Amino acid sequence: MTISAETRVDLTRFWTTIERSAQIGIGRPGGLSRLTLGDADRDMRDQFVAWCREAGLSVTVDTMGNIFGRRAGRDDSLPPILIGSHLDTQINGGRFDGIVGVLAGLEVVRTLNDAGHTTRRPIVVVDWTNEEGARFSPPMVASGCFVGRYAPDWCHDLVADDGARFGDELERIGYKGDVACEAGAIDAYFELHIEQGPILDAEGKQVGLVTGGYPSYGMRVRFDGETAHTGPTPMDLRRNALVAGARFLTAVDDIGWECAALDGKATGSRLAAWPNKPGILSERAECVADVRHPDPVAARVMAERVRRAAQEAAARAGCTVTMEDEWFWGGDIFDAGLIALIRDEAVRQGYDWRDIRSQAGHDAYHLAMHCPSAMIFTPCKGGITHNNRESCDIEDFRADLNMLLHAAVRRADR
Amino acid sequence: MTISAETRVDLTRFWTTIERSAQIGIGRPGGLSRLTLGDADRDMRDQFVAWCREAGLSVTVDTMGNIFGRRAGRDDSLPPILIGSHLDTQINGGRFDGIVGVLAGLEVVRTLNDAGHTTRRPIVVVDWTNEEGARFSPPMVASGCFVGRYAPDWCHDLVADDGARFGDELERIGYKGDVACEAGAIDAYFELHIEQGPILDAEGKQVGLVTGGYPSYGMRVRFDGETAHTGPTPMDLRRNALVAGARFLTAVDDIGWECAALDGKATGSRLAAWPNKPGILSERAECVADVRHPDPVAARVMAERVRRAAQEAAARAGCTVTMEDEWFWGGDIFDAGLIALIRDEAVRQGYDWRDIRSQAGHDAYHLAMHCPSAMIFTPCKGGITHNNRESCDIEDFRADLNMLLHAAVRRADR
Repeated sequence: MTISAETRVDLTRFWTTIERSAQIGIGRPGGLSRLTLGDADRDMRDQFVAWCREAGLSVTVDTMGNIFGRRAGRDDSLPPILIGSHLDTQINGGRFDGIVGVLAGLEVVRTLNDAGHTTRRPIVVVDWTNEEGARFSPPMVASGCFVGRYAPDWCHDLVADDGARFGDELERIGYKGDVACEAGAIDAYFELHIEQGPILDAEGKQVGLVTGGYPSYGMRVRFDGETAHTGPTPMDLRRNALVAGARFLTAVDDIGWECAALDGKATGSRLAAWPNKPGILSERAECVADVRHPDPVAARVMAERVRRAAQEAAARAGCTVTMEDEWFWGGDIFDAGLIALIRDEAVRQGYDWRDIRSQAGHDAYHLAMHCPSAMIFTPCKGGITHNNRESCDIEDFRADLNMLLHAAVRRADR
Repeated sequence: MTISAETRVDLTRFWTTIERSAQIGIGRPGGLSRLTLGDADRDMRDQFVAWCREAGLSVTVDTMGNIFGRRAGRDDSLPPILIGSHLDTQINGGRFDGIVGVLAGLEVVRTLNDAGHTTRRPIVVVDWTNEEGARFSPPMVASGCFVGRYAPDWCHDLVADDGARFGDELERIGYKGDVACEAGAIDAYFELHIEQGPILDAEGKQVGLVTGGYPSYGMRVRFDGETAHTGPTPMDLRRNALVAGARFLTAVDDIGWECAALDGKATGSRLAAWPNKPGILSERAECVADVRHPDPVAARVMAERVRRAAQEAAARAGCTVTMEDEWFWGGDIFDAGLIALIRDEAVRQGYDWRDIRSQAGHDAYHLAMHCPSAMIFTPCKGGITHNNRESCDIEDFRADLNMLLHAAVRRADR
């Protein structure tokens, strides 16, 4: 026994949750600025927990602040289906990125409640803490901790630019739970997300079936030099770490342009120097750079070139260089069975779909290290994201939500 | 009637004031971190004012926090002699830069008190607020205001990276005086300073007679782009202001190297981007750059190349550029008569001197726009400065202080 093949989500009800979310942590016009573990993040979590409880879900919070709203299954000991994403945003963020994936999970269980159907396996709606990394770096840290990639203590000791400690902020907002942050057995993980790229919108497709992600390498690099006066210090005696950082990010951008014809990208996203003041050479600079390319070999070569550029920039500026952190994600990591299941729903329900690869990082990349995982992309206007002009219409979600509903329930009733 | 030709300062007494100053706002080992208008700056000002009063000086504070300790002259209506420098330091600063110039003035009046001599003209010891610019940019702002280069209200509205407003901090520490910040008639301005370069130390000279400064051009440049996701945004649609800033500072450094053979220097000293976070392109970057060259034409050409580099960097990164502030100092601006007077004392007292040009900015550059001005340089070990390893011995100050004493008194008795 399962839901009718004609069962559909309540799109208007889903949209009201998006609109309510868009009132919490208001940013620039139309957007959000809901940084991880700030007061607005707490308020949104409170709202989400209240919605979960109204929907009859049992709510648990783990030691990383990940929130799980669980709907029991008929055979409740079976590994659950997880549906989730994140409720935090960039500092100049939109109202859809991440948020739609969590609230889609909520809409799925609300629809099941309306239908009076209990799935065989439990279904768990998840909000992952700090996907964005806009306040605490690295991004996607709590889903990474969940699958064993980062240790909880290491995560708790992360410090933001504002001086706040991750663990302290978790406690302050009341979301340092007592459940261990570790993934047990999970049957499948689904994540619905906006594309954050222009392809679906440009092609007029209703939905993207995500087969994987662009192989992406990132790194946090530190340059050390020495303070000195900007005036009398001869060029060849300088050890200006700011110049090392500037040279490094310039080289990264050059690498991006050289690989752009085949859709490679290289980005310098952060340069924080100290003291970074007129009149004095800086003794320290921290840079963050990443590269992405559809071809795994090309991506690996780009990453190696960026590493070499860091060495060259340091040498040119008389500084030392330390690779403080490196990460990789992407590749064709999503589960073929789940993708086939979602595609079957797209065909059955008659939606206009295409396969697509993600160019952004997502919590699903971490989950895919642990259990069968898949993502569904919604078009967003012009691909604009991480910007308050990020934009979707209610109709953009009809295909995705209904495919998610049926794919998740078919999996849960398996 | 004047002091004896054999009158000398009390070098030990001078040194005790340096050592007391070195206890206020202690930084890294041996150094100071006494940022403008912070608590340590207030404590040092309190100490300086107490010393001035002990020496019988009448103390006034102007609306920019500049402190004047005045010793009356026999003809007290005549324009005074000013002797001064600054008591603030860089965040990783030394214990001599600026400080010795203020305390040298104090030692001059103490020596006159011991000799029981009243000069014909008044002598005023000055502490200029915020010479360093380490907290509020631009540097030398209060001496600039004094000579009419900056408006007091504009200065009061300066905001530090820590969010503090200049005017508010002045009031908070109790040094927003009620005297207008404007230079009246001044007979002469003397400033004793450490060289902040390696020349005197390397040549074993006791003192440098400063004829002027390297022509120096500086600018604060702002790049504006747009936030977007680092992942999916194609290279040619990016408007990453951080990349514009990095390209600009790289070009500035290249210009410095190309001019290094003739002792030109170009420096990128600041790059502050926003949001400056992993995962998002930055929409804004503020850079500070300057160039210095012994040859005025070469310096002007370097500055023009830097301006052009800002345009090119902006264009390459798809950003707009705004020149927010530009400044110039240096040139052979010091007074020939004063220099001759100081040189005469060097010869008469038998010190080993040389003419030298400053490569750093000093309050004396502003004063020279208004009245006859001169500087005397003390050697410092290896030219190291803006660093806690800045180092001088007590004996390094014997020549400078005694030349300053006699030159100032000859001028004041004129």
